[in-house]
Amino acid sequence: MKKRILGIDPGTGICGFGVVDFITHKSPRMITAGVITTPAHTPVADRLLDIYDSLHEIIDETQPDEVSIEKLFFNQNITTGITVAEARGVVILVARQYDLPIFEYTPLQIKQTMTGYGRAKKKDMQEAVRKYLNMAEVIKPDDAADAVAAAITHALMTRAQYSL
Amino acid sequence: MKKRILGIDPGTGICGFGVVDFITHKSPRMITAGVITTPAHTPVADRLLDIYDSLHEIIDETQPDEVSIEKLFFNQNITTGITVAEARGVVILVARQYDLPIFEYTPLQIKQTMTGYGRAKKKDMQEAVRKYLNMAEVIKPDDAADAVAAAITHALMTRAQYSL
Repeated sequence: MKKRILGIDPGTGICGFGVVDFITHKSPRMITAGVITTPAHTPVADRLLDIYDSLHEIIDETQPDEVSIEKLFFNQNITTGITVAEARGVVILVARQYDLPIFEYTPLQIKQTMTGYGRAKKKDMQEAVRKYLNMAEVIKPDDAADAVAAAITHALMTRAQYSL
Repeated sequence: MKKRILGIDPGTGICGFGVVDFITHKSPRMITAGVITTPAHTPVADRLLDIYDSLHEIIDETQPDEVSIEKLFFNQNITTGITVAEARGVVILVARQYDLPIFEYTPLQIKQTMTGYGRAKKKDMQEAVRKYLNMAEVIKPDDAADAVAAAITHALMTRAQYSL
């Protein structure tokens, strides 16, 4: 059984993505990871279009089976929360355009799954992802690592179902 | 000088739209108004795709010059706020795909402009829109009237600039 999962850490300023293959009885393998990013002060509409076009390219190139998206954690900053939700809307739209099953996990679920600790720091998360994928170096920037963590979390959460 | 404005009142459950022509020395004319709506319990991804496809159709058919979108007013219900912001992301994306200039107004600005009163009720808004457009009946449902109000507000806010 092979499953290719696209993980997304949504945001308008910087949107992380990571594609990981999970194959039964084999080590997981990272296919690609990175961030969709636009210069500061870029209008929101331009950023959303960039996310839309870039995600189309990423999905066309990597052909994932499922998408795992980090759920919005609403912190103090409502303005940031709104722009993240706007980016999430575009991410969900694109996944739906490709008829990809969409799964969502809160930051708490992802941190807990990756490190056993819901308040893990960015560094701990990067290190947990590095270890899990048996890589020499951590994935940078941390938004890309977080996207990969979302993909891994989905694989781990559903492994009984898929016998990964 | 003629300006055709598409007004949008975003939401995932129900997304209002209205297209109004503003022509110098003539009365404004409503071209179309309505709502994009999906049955209760429709998955968010399906709703966002529906909004995306419907907006493309509306813009293709009506060819507006500018888009006026109601800004998110963050009330107590954060979950509703997030889904509205997700819909807004898709609306802004589509407007950007057509290279349409995007303008945003808060509910307060729209109510104030239409009725002179920032806390106007839905009924008052519908009536203000009806009067402004010289119509026999109010526009229903109120989400469609709100979208038309967003279009009118933009025309009124910028009329010196465009001499509408």
